[in-house]
Amino acid sequence: MRVAVYPGTFDPITNGHLDIVERAAGLFDCVIIAIADENYKENLFTLEERKDLVKKVCQDIPNIEVEAFQGLLADFVQKKKAYIIIRGLRAVSDFEYEFQMSVMNKKLNRDIETVFLTAANEYTFLSSSIIKQVASLGGSIKGLVPIVVEQALEDKFAERRKRS
Amino acid sequence: MRVAVYPGTFDPITNGHLDIVERAAGLFDCVIIAIADENYKENLFTLEERKDLVKKVCQDIPNIEVEAFQGLLADFVQKKKAYIIIRGLRAVSDFEYEFQMSVMNKKLNRDIETVFLTAANEYTFLSSSIIKQVASLGGSIKGLVPIVVEQALEDKFAERRKRS
Amino acid sequence: MRVAVYPGTFDPITNGHLDIVERAAGLFDCVIIAIADENYKENLFTLEERKDLVKKVCQDIPNIEVEAFQGLLADFVQKKKAYIIIRGLRAVSDFEYEFQMSVMNKKLNRDIETVFLTAANEYTFLSSSIIKQVASLGGSIKGLVPIVVEQALEDKFAERRKRS
Amino acid sequence: MRVAVYPGTFDPITNGHLDIVERAAGLFDCVIIAIADENYKENLFTLEERKDLVKKVCQDIPNIEVEAFQGLLADFVQKKKAYIIIRGLRAVSDFEYEFQMSVMNKKLNRDIETVFLTAANEYTFLSSSIIKQVASLGGSIKGLVPIVVEQALEDKFAERRKRS
Amino acid sequence: MRVAVYPGTFDPITNGHLDIVERAAGLFDCVIIAIADENYKENLFTLEERKDLVKKVCQDIPNIEVEAFQGLLADFVQKKKAYIIIRGLRAVSDFEYEFQMSVMNKKLNRDIETVFLTAANEYTFLSSSIIKQVASLGGSIKGLVPIVVEQALEDKFAERRKRS
Amino acid sequence: MRVAVYPGTFDPITNGHLDIVERAAGLFDCVIIAIADENYKENLFTLEERKDLVKKVCQDIPNIEVEAFQGLLADFVQKKKAYIIIRGLRAVSDFEYEFQMSVMNKKLNRDIETVFLTAANEYTFLSSSIIKQVASLGGSIKGLVPIVVEQALEDKFAERRKRS
Repeated sequence: MRVAVYPGTFDPITNGHLDIVERAAGLFDCVIIAIADENYKENLFTLEERKDLVKKVCQDIPNIEVEAFQGLLADFVQKKKAYIIIRGLRAVSDFEYEFQMSVMNKKLNRDIETVFLTAANEYTFLSSSIIKQVASLGGSIKGLVPIVVEQALEDKFAERRKRS
Repeated sequence: MRVAVYPGTFDPITNGHLDIVERAAGLFDCVIIAIADENYKENLFTLEERKDLVKKVCQDIPNIEVEAFQGLLADFVQKKKAYIIIRGLRAVSDFEYEFQMSVMNKKLNRDIETVFLTAANEYTFLSSSIIKQVASLGGSIKGLVPIVVEQALEDKFAERRKRS
Repeated sequence: MRVAVYPGTFDPITNGHLDIVERAAGLFDCVIIAIADENYKENLFTLEERKDLVKKVCQDIPNIEVEAFQGLLADFVQKKKAYIIIRGLRAVSDFEYEFQMSVMNKKLNRDIETVFLTAANEYTFLSSSIIKQVASLGGSIKGLVPIVVEQALEDKFAERRKRS
Repeated sequence: MRVAVYPGTFDPITNGHLDIVERAAGLFDCVIIAIADENYKENLFTLEERKDLVKKVCQDIPNIEVEAFQGLLADFVQKKKAYIIIRGLRAVSDFEYEFQMSVMNKKLNRDIETVFLTAANEYTFLSSSIIKQVASLGGSIKGLVPIVVEQALEDKFAERRKRS
Repeated sequence: MRVAVYPGTFDPITNGHLDIVERAAGLFDCVIIAIADENYKENLFTLEERKDLVKKVCQDIPNIEVEAFQGLLADFVQKKKAYIIIRGLRAVSDFEYEFQMSVMNKKLNRDIETVFLTAANEYTFLSSSIIKQVASLGGSIKGLVPIVVEQALEDKFAERRKRS
Repeated sequence: MRVAVYPGTFDPITNGHLDIVERAAGLFDCVIIAIADENYKENLFTLEERKDLVKKVCQDIPNIEVEAFQGLLADFVQKKKAYIIIRGLRAVSDFEYEFQMSVMNKKLNRDIETVFLTAANEYTFLSSSIIKQVASLGGSIKGLVPIVVEQALEDKFAERRKRS
C-alpha cells in the first residue's frame, strides 16, 4: 500500500488545494492531509478550525485522512510510513522553494520521495494569502474556495470587524 | 475618455515610478495615481506625506490625478469608472506576483484590464525599499528619486536619528 | 487618435492571440495586426494564408486593421504613426525576451512604447507551435483556435500527408 | 494496478534519467519508458540503438517496460491504459515548458495526470545534449552516464571522426 | 594586491558559505569576510557569536580576515580599499536580488565590482534559514555546516528549550 | 599571476562584451579572450574576422590576449594554465545555462573556477544576435557596438544585399 502525505498550513483550504487532494487520491492508495501546527506563523484560523474545514471539504473522498503535525515533516512522514510527499506547483517562485525543501527532506531521510503536481490552469493564481487578503477587504471569493470555507471566512472577518 | 489607475504605496515615489507615470499619461486620457492606505504595512511616510510628494513631483503632467484609496483596488477602479490598471514590470519576480494580481482583479471584475509597462532600462534595479535602505544608512540617492523626495528622505532620517 | 500595433507571425492565429486583440481593441482607438513577413523562418502557412485567417477571425471587431510588414518593426510602427506596440505575456521566458525587444525598440525610436497584456488564464499554455505540433499528430485543437483555423490546419496536414 | 509512462528521446539515456526511472519504479506498479520516434529531430542514435541502451541500463529494475512510440503522447498513454506521465524537473526553464505540456496533455485527455520528480541534486546540470557536446569534443563523461552508454558514445564519435 | 569583501549575515556560517570563502581565497590576494551588524534583523546568534564561529571555521585559510561592519557595504568596501565584492549565487531568485544590489553598489561607487561564484552543486539548496529551521525542530544538519556550528546550534536550541 | 579566460563566439563583439573585458582586466593579471571556432554554428563573421575585430576593439587594454580555440573550453583553459573562466550574466535565462556549464566545467576539471560579472545596466538587453538582426534589417546600432564593428556590420550586409 502506497501512502502519500500532502502537507500544508491550509489557512484555509482553497479549491486549488482540493484539486491537488483529489488528483493525489487517484494516484496513491491513501493520502494523509498533514496540517502544520506552526506556532511561529500567525494564522487566521486555529489549528482546530483548519482541520475541521479540511475534513468537511474532503469528506467525500474515501482514501483521505486528515492529521495535524508538529516538528519536522520528514519525521511525521516516517512515523506514518508514508515516504511520499505531495506538493502542488503553481509558478516559478514556488518551484525554487519546493526544490530546496525536497532536497532537504531527502537529506533528512533518503527514502522520502517528493512528487509534484501542477496546479490546474484555473488555480495557478490562487493562494490562501490572496484569498484572505481579498476576503478581508470584502471582495468576493466565490468559486475560489469551497462554500463552507467561504462562510467561515465571512464569519471570521465579520467577527474581526465587530471587535475592532 | 479612457481613464487608467496606477496604484501603489509610493513610500516614497521614485524616478522609476515617475517614468511609468509620464509614459502612462501619454497612453491614456487620464491617469489616476492611487496611493494605497494600507494600515497593516509599516510605511516610512504617512499617507498625507506620500500624497503630497506625488503631487509635487507630478504637478507638471496635465492629465494626472492623485488620490488615496482603501480596500480593494478593484472596487476603487470601478468607482472611478477607470477599468484600466497600470503596472510597471522590472524583473521576473515582479512578473509572477503581478500576473497573479491581474488574474485576481479580472476575477473580481471582468471589465478590468491590467496593462504592463516595463521599467526603463536605468531603473530596473530601483525600488522604494532599496531607496529607503540606502538613505537610512546615509548613502546618496541622487538621480534615483526626484529632488523633493531626496530632501524629504534626508529630513525623515535626520529626525529619526535625533529621536534615537 | 491612439493607434497600436500588435505584431506577430500568426502562424496561425490562436484563441490566445484573439483574446489579446479584443482586449487591445478596447484600450486603443485602432489596432493594426502586423503580420511579419520573415523569409528566414519556416512557416506552415504562407503570408497570404496567415493574413486571410487573421482577417476572417477578426472581422467583427470594428477598430482593427490587418497588414503585413517586412523589415524592422520600429520602422513599420513609425510609418503607421502608431508608436504603441502591444505584446501578450504568458510566462517568465516570454518576459525576458519581450523585455529585451522592448528596450531595443525604444533604442531605435524613443517615441515607441511597448504595452504588455497578460494572457487570459486559460491560454497561458497556448502557442502557435504547440497547436501545430498537436494538429500535425492528429490531436484535437478544438477550443484552442477559431473554427476557421481548425479547418485550415486540418486541410494543411491532410494535404501534407497526401504528398508524403 | 497503476501504470506510469516516462516519455523522452533518450538520445542517449543519462544517469539523470536512470535516477528518475528508479524512483518512479518505486512509486508505481509499472513504469513504461516510452522512447519518442520523432522524425523531425536529428538524433545521434537511431531509435533501435536508443531502445537497446535503455533496455540494457534498466534490465535490473523488475517493473519496467521499454517501448517506442510515434504520434501524440496522449494517445500512447491512453492505448497503454496508463494515465500517469512521469517527468523530471531540473530547472526553471524546464518547469515552464513542462507545465505547458502537462496542461496540453490534460486538455487532450482529462484522465491524464502528469507527475513531476525533481532531479537528484548531482544531476541538475545534466542533459543528453550537454553529454553529447562534451563527448563529441573528447571530454570525459564518466559518472554522468551508465558505462554501456559511455562506450556507445565513444564508438559513435570514433566512427564519425573516421568518416570525416 | 587585490582585496575582496565577502559580506553576509552568517547566522550561522554554513558549508555553502565556507565553500565560497575557500574558492574566493584562491582568486584574490585577501578576502575579508564582512559580517553585517544589522540591528533590524532578528538573528539567532549575536554578532560576537557569529564572528567567533566564522573565525574558527576559517582559521586554516591564510589570506582571510574576519570583520564586522555597520552601515553601507559600499562605504565599508571603500574604507578597506577592497573594491571587489564576492557573492554566491544559488538560484534564480538569488540572481535577481543580487543583480539589483550590484547595480546599486556600482551606483554608490563606480569603482566597486561585484563578482559572483555559483554555489557548489551539493549546496544549491542550502541556506542559513533552512539550517536554523531544521535544527530548531531537532533534525540532523550533519554535513551541511562545520562541526563547531553544528555544536553551537545544538547548544543554542537546547538553551531555548530550557527557557521555554 | 592570475590568468582568466573570457570565452565566446564574439560574432561580433558588442559594447556589452567590451564592458565585461575591461572590468575583468581590472580583476585579474591577464585576460585571454578565447574565440570559439565552432564549425556547427553558422556565424556571420569568419573566425579571422571575429578575431580581428576583437583585437582592434581591445588594443588599448594592456593585459589582454586574443586567441581562437577549438574543442573543449576546459582543455583550452588547462593548456593556458588559466583556471579562471569569466562569464557575463544578463538575465535569468542566461543564469540557468551558465550555471549548467560552470558545473560541467568543474566536473571536467576540479581546478576550474567560473567567475560571473553582471552586465552593466545599459547592456542587459544586448546580444550579438539582436545586433545582427537589427543591422540586417537596416536599423541603427550606434552606441551598442564599437565603431569598427558598426562599420564591419554595414559592409557585411551591404555585400550580402549585393549578392542576393
